[in-house]
Amino acid sequence: MNPLLVKEDAAMSDTVLHDQIRQMGYRALAASRALIGLTTRRKNAILQAMADELLTRRAAIQAANAADVADGRAAGLSAALVDRLTLTDARFDAMVGGVREVAALPDPVGRRIWRRTRPNGIVIEKRRVPLGVVAIIFESRPNVTADAAVLCIKTSNAVILRGGKEAIRSNLAITEALAAGGARAGLPDHAVQLIPTTDREAVRELVQLEDCVDVVIPRGGESLIRAVVEQARIPVLKHYKGVCHLYVDAAADLDMALRIAENAKCQRPGTCNAIEKLLVHEQAAAAFLPRLAELAVRRAIEIRADAAARTIIPAFGPATEADWSAEYLDLILTVGVVPSLQAAIDHINRHGSHHSDAIITANRRAADRFLKEVDSAAVYVNASTRFTDGGEFGMGAEMGISTDKLHARGPMGLEELTTYKYRVTGAGQIR
Amino acid sequence: MNPLLVKEDAAMSDTVLHDQIRQMGYRALAASRALIGLTTRRKNAILQAMADELLTRRAAIQAANAADVADGRAAGLSAALVDRLTLTDARFDAMVGGVREVAALPDPVGRRIWRRTRPNGIVIEKRRVPLGVVAIIFESRPNVTADAAVLCIKTSNAVILRGGKEAIRSNLAITEALAAGGARAGLPDHAVQLIPTTDREAVRELVQLEDCVDVVIPRGGESLIRAVVEQARIPVLKHYKGVCHLYVDAAADLDMALRIAENAKCQRPGTCNAIEKLLVHEQAAAAFLPRLAELAVRRAIEIRADAAARTIIPAFGPATEADWSAEYLDLILTVGVVPSLQAAIDHINRHGSHHSDAIITANRRAADRFLKEVDSAAVYVNASTRFTDGGEFGMGAEMGISTDKLHARGPMGLEELTTYKYRVTGAGQIR
Repeated sequence: MNPLLVKEDAAMSDTVLHDQIRQMGYRALAASRALIGLTTRRKNAILQAMADELLTRRAAIQAANAADVADGRAAGLSAALVDRLTLTDARFDAMVGGVREVAALPDPVGRRIWRRTRPNGIVIEKRRVPLGVVAIIFESRPNVTADAAVLCIKTSNAVILRGGKEAIRSNLAITEALAAGGARAGLPDHAVQLIPTTDREAVRELVQLEDCVDVVIPRGGESLIRAVVEQARIPVLKHYKGVCHLYVDAAADLDMALRIAENAKCQRPGTCNAIEKLLVHEQAAAAFLPRLAELAVRRAIEIRADAAARTIIPAFGPATEADWSAEYLDLILTVGVVPSLQAAIDHINRHGSHHSDAIITANRRAADRFLKEVDSAAVYVNASTRFTDGGEFGMGAEMGISTDKLHARGPMGLEELTTYKYRVTGAGQIR
Repeated sequence: MNPLLVKEDAAMSDTVLHDQIRQMGYRALAASRALIGLTTRRKNAILQAMADELLTRRAAIQAANAADVADGRAAGLSAALVDRLTLTDARFDAMVGGVREVAALPDPVGRRIWRRTRPNGIVIEKRRVPLGVVAIIFESRPNVTADAAVLCIKTSNAVILRGGKEAIRSNLAITEALAAGGARAGLPDHAVQLIPTTDREAVRELVQLEDCVDVVIPRGGESLIRAVVEQARIPVLKHYKGVCHLYVDAAADLDMALRIAENAKCQRPGTCNAIEKLLVHEQAAAAFLPRLAELAVRRAIEIRADAAARTIIPAFGPATEADWSAEYLDLILTVGVVPSLQAAIDHINRHGSHHSDAIITANRRAADRFLKEVDSAAVYVNASTRFTDGGEFGMGAEMGISTDKLHARGPMGLEELTTYKYRVTGAGQIR
C-alpha cells in the first residue's frame, strides 16, 4: 500500500546520479508531509535555531568559503564573480539577520482566503497551504542558500537547493548548519537538502521529478533559466530579465525626471529594477536631453540613442535594434524620442521585459493610461523603478522577482511560496 | 518604433501555417490591448449581443453541426463521441443561457487586492488585470467554443480557440456568431479567433508563441494534455485526471457512507469529480463491505478489490496495481481495506491525482487530519466529491478544474483567468 517506501529503498540500493536525485526528491516529499504539522511558533523557533547555528559555525563556514574563493581565483574567475562568491563578515551578518527577519514575518500558511456556506449547507473554506517541495537552482552567491531555505521553511515547504559549482563548499557548510540548527528545534529530516554534486545532469534529473517536486525556481542569468525551462517537466517560476523603462512625458517635471533617471540608472546599475531605457516625448526632448547629456557626463553613463535624440545631442552614440531589448546591468542607457504617449506604451510593451516601467508626468490622464496599458508587473508614476523589491513593497524578504504572469508576478514573497486548497465540510450532502 | 506592425505585415505576405498562426497570435495581442479599455458594462453588453446572435443564427449553426455529426458517423465515431458532438436543442439553449450567466457574474478585472502607503509616501496598489491572450485547445463538444470564449471576454482576455477536427464546422459557425454579435456591441477585432485548420502542427505553433500568447489551457483527454505540455514554451494550466477517493473511517456513519458512495460513483460516472476508489478502515470493513456489495449489484458497479476486501466479499474481482491510479470514468470502483487513517492519507497522496478526496467520519480529529494532510485541490468531510465544480462552489461558470498547484487549483473561474499588477504612484521618490 505504500510504494513510496519501496521506491526509496530501491533508490538507496543504487548510487547512480539518477537514483540519488530521486531519493532526495522522495525524502523531500516525506519531509513536506511532516512540515504540514508544524505550528508557526515551531517554525519560527526552527528559524532562530538556524540563525544561532550559523553563528556557532561562523569560522568553519567562512573557512569553507575561503577555500571556494581560493579555487575560484586559481580557476581564473572574474573579479566580479570572486566578489559575489565572497562571504565577507558584513554579508555573513546580513545572512544571519535575514534569517531572523523571516522568522519575524507573518506566516501565510493556514490563512483563510474565503469561507462560504452554500444553499445546500456545505461549508467551503479556501485556505493557503504550502506548495510542497520547492527546488531552487542558483548561481555564485552562497548567502542565497540561507535566504531561499528559510523562506521555504517559513512557508512549510521542503526545499532542494542546487548552487553554483564555484560555491559548493560554502553552500554545503551553510546547509549543514541550517539542517543541524533546525533539527535541534524540531525540523523534519531532509526538509533542507543541498545537491552535493556539481554534475550538470543533476539539474536535469531534478527538474523532471514530476511526482515529488512541485515547482522549480531558477535564480541566475538568462542561460541558466532557459536551460531549466527547456528541461523542466515541472512548473517553473522564473525571472528572465529586467529591461525597465523611464518615459519622460510631455507634461513631465524635468527636474524630477532627471533625479529619477539618475537614481534608477545609477544607484545600483547591476540590479534588475534599474532602468536600461529612457524614452522622452518629442515635446520635452529639446529641453530634457541636454540635461540628460550633462548627467551622463557627470555619472559616466554611456548613452546609445536613436536618430531623433542624436539630432539634438550629436555626442550620443547610436543605438542598434538589439539595444532596445538589451539588459546591460551596467552604466549604459538607450535613449529614444517618441511622438506620443501611445508610442511610448507600445514601445515598452513590445521591447520591455514586463518587469518595471515608469512614467514621469504631471498629467493625470497620461498617468492613468500608462498604469493601465503598460503590461508590466510594476508600473510607476513619478517614482523610481528601483522600488520593485519585496522589502520596499512591504512584503518582507523575497525569493526573486517574477516576470511571469501566472501564479506570481513581481516580487515573490512568502505568499507566492504557497498555494491553496478547498476544505469542504458537510453533513452527508449529495448532489 | 513598432516592430509589431512590421511583423504582422510580414506574416500577412505569407500563407504557410507557421505564419498564419503567428498572425493570429499578433492579432490576438493587439485585441488584448484594446480589450483593456472596455468597461464591465460594455463587456456585458458584448456578451448579451453574442447570446442574441447565437439565437439568430441557430438554424445555420445546427445545420453546420448536423454536417459534422453526419461526417462523424460516416467516419465511424463511437456512439459516445457522436453524442458529445451533437448540439441538441437543449444543449443549444444551455449554451446561450451560459453566455448570459457569465454576463451576470461579477467582473474581477480592476479589483483591488490591496493598497499600501509606504513610509516614503509611495502608494502601492495590487490590482487584478487580464492575463492577455489565452489559447484554449479542446476536443469534441462544440459548446465549449462559446463557454470558453465568453469567460475570456468577460475577463478582458483575447482568446484563440482550437477545437477538435470532428467539430470544425460547428465551431466555425459558433465563433462567427460570437464575433459578429460581439462586434455589433463594440468587441475589438480578433478578440475571439478560431484556428480554422485541423492540421495538428497548428497546435505546436500555437503553444510556442511565447511573445504573444500568455497561457494555454488544454481541455480534454490525458494524451492531448501531455502533448501540449511537451510542446509548450508558454505556461500551461492543466487538468490531468480525477482519481478521486472516498475513505470510510472507523468512525463513519455507514448509512451516510453508502449514500455518498452511491452518489459520488453513480450520479455521473464520466465526470472528473466522480470517485474511482473507495478505502475503508479495517474496523468498518466487515460491516460496510457487504452493504457496498449490495449497492454494486443494484447499480451494476464492477468492483475491483484488494485481498483484504475479497476475504470479506469473495465475489469482488481482484484489483491490479494499475487499478489504484486508473481513472475509469465508468461504473467501476477499486476497493481497499486500510489499517489506519494514516494509511488512507498516504495511499491517497501516493495514488490519487490531487483532485477531490473525501472522508466519512464522525470523529472530528480524524476529519481535521484528513483535511490538512490530504494534498488535493478539494478535500471533503461527509459530503460527495461531486461538489467540486465552479457552480457548486459559488464561483459561477468554470473553465475546467486544475490539478496543478500553481496559479489555479481546483475549479478555474473568472478570477483564475486574471493576473495582477502593482501600480505605484509617487511624487518624485527615489531610493
